[in-house]
Amino acid sequence: MNELQLIERIRRIVGSRRPGGLMLGIGDDCAIFRLAGAREDLLVTTDFVLEDVHFRRATHPPAAVGHRVLARGLSDIAAMGGKPRFCLLSLALAPWTDTRWIDAFYRGFLALARKTKTALAGGDLARAGRLACDIVVCGTVPKGTALRRDGARPGDAICVTGRLGASALGLATRRGAAWRVHLWPEPRLAIGWFLRARLHASAAMDLSDGLSLDLHRLCLASGVAASLDGEIPTFRGATVEQARHGGEDYELLFTLRPGVKPPASIAGVPVTRIGTIRKGRPGSLSLAGRPLEPRGWDHLGRQ
Amino acid sequence: MNELQLIERIRRIVGSRRPGGLMLGIGDDCAIFRLAGAREDLLVTTDFVLEDVHFRRATHPPAAVGHRVLARGLSDIAAMGGKPRFCLLSLALAPWTDTRWIDAFYRGFLALARKTKTALAGGDLARAGRLACDIVVCGTVPKGTALRRDGARPGDAICVTGRLGASALGLATRRGAAWRVHLWPEPRLAIGWFLRARLHASAAMDLSDGLSLDLHRLCLASGVAASLDGEIPTFRGATVEQARHGGEDYELLFTLRPGVKPPASIAGVPVTRIGTIRKGRPGSLSLAGRPLEPRGWDHLGRQ
Repeated sequence: MNELQLIERIRRIVGSRRPGGLMLGIGDDCAIFRLAGAREDLLVTTDFVLEDVHFRRATHPPAAVGHRVLARGLSDIAAMGGKPRFCLLSLALAPWTDTRWIDAFYRGFLALARKTKTALAGGDLARAGRLACDIVVCGTVPKGTALRRDGARPGDAICVTGRLGASALGLATRRGAAWRVHLWPEPRLAIGWFLRARLHASAAMDLSDGLSLDLHRLCLASGVAASLDGEIPTFRGATVEQARHGGEDYELLFTLRPGVKPPASIAGVPVTRIGTIRKGRPGSLSLAGRPLEPRGWDHLGRQ
Repeated sequence: MNELQLIERIRRIVGSRRPGGLMLGIGDDCAIFRLAGAREDLLVTTDFVLEDVHFRRATHPPAAVGHRVLARGLSDIAAMGGKPRFCLLSLALAPWTDTRWIDAFYRGFLALARKTKTALAGGDLARAGRLACDIVVCGTVPKGTALRRDGARPGDAICVTGRLGASALGLATRRGAAWRVHLWPEPRLAIGWFLRARLHASAAMDLSDGLSLDLHRLCLASGVAASLDGEIPTFRGATVEQARHGGEDYELLFTLRPGVKPPASIAGVPVTRIGTIRKGRPGSLSLAGRPLEPRGWDHLGRQ
């Protein structure tokens, strides 16, 4: 069973009935919840960061692990055009964790928290065989305006921010600019805000598991197909494979209605039109006229 | 470093400044957040449930693991007098997890979710060496009315619900009623509601780590001491030690202003007055006139 299959299975068991206030449930970057009387909707996201799955003790400095834990949650808030408000961190310490590691971890975590005005508001502590974190980030967005995965329509332009494949290249080589991007990803909060408030993007999500798999998911959610007919912006030194399928770039993938021209850059980050949303089998992708198999990071793939 | 020391360390690094909307941060059962215009406050809690820490594959049926994961989060909402609204579940599957285990796990989880009207609204999936869950529960409470740990004052009565030590006894014997209580704890949502709306309890928290340690924490948060002068209600067959220090009973511990008489039971669950809040060194406990050391479950204790 792969990740999409398990999510579908859970979604079926849960059913489609949504109780009062819950505007969006399983299957997007964040859940959306509306409180009676509130002028803003609440966004909530949760993500694991696990030793030997998402990072390795031998290669990842503790401050970077702390940074990446929070960045992972913030990136989901960015994808919906939200503003982060507060977070909760669950941390299970491993037998090898010492005070120095913990202090450096929190230093990295809290530096990003301060920069993005995200208050650390609680969490849980435990011990386990391997270090495990779970990050919860809560954000807000003006009522009814959150960017979602399910709004793409045939004819929309498909765009990405930045240059893809950096994180995969960095993980493979462990040096240079690509390794720095892998260790210190920058959640695209200002860009998400701009996509929502200025460009009124029709759909958006963050690129956490690789372009091909994430675009496949966006198309599935929107019930559309996609053809990639523009050049995929590639990080210097990264392979075509890394740019197409490499995970953890934390750039934004989004779609714009036909009348909206993508700017060359947003907040200093290049924006590239890479394709067009088409009618067709939901989730199917083509690249330069040939089928493209989604094959990024499946969280339930055997490791 | 034990858990309280690490929490203090984190609290110091984080600082006391709370950004807009965050009414309560580190150190209580839930974080409290207020959205502009909303008539209710939001409660958010997150908790780990880890294989070989919080449950064992060999002894805990999967449906009970699913139930306990959600119960752990719901109990924090109950402690604040809140109503659960939705939850997110992060689940890292172990190599041994098969479809049957996963289905039974979700069956247990979702039965409690339905019973308590808590929608499953998302989460994260991963694989890891050992099974790991993190549960996030979001609830609501009328603005400004959440029960907290820091409201106890000298003279207040100290009360508990239920009979303590059942979970510790059950874990030790793995049979009978105590084992059923351990496997299927019942979050005290109706009681929490009553404590908040009817009795206006001055402080409350859930008993997750044992009476002595949790009462110590409540007293620390409130800046008071406590003397236990009543009998501690003990589950049939449990030892005095299990009742005083055993964790995971998920009963409620609360305090009432001097004028408020504790009812004999709430929602069919017995209520017992066990002591009185006193002036004194914050967090210090006495039992029948002699000092009582808090020694329940420290999440950072060596295992």
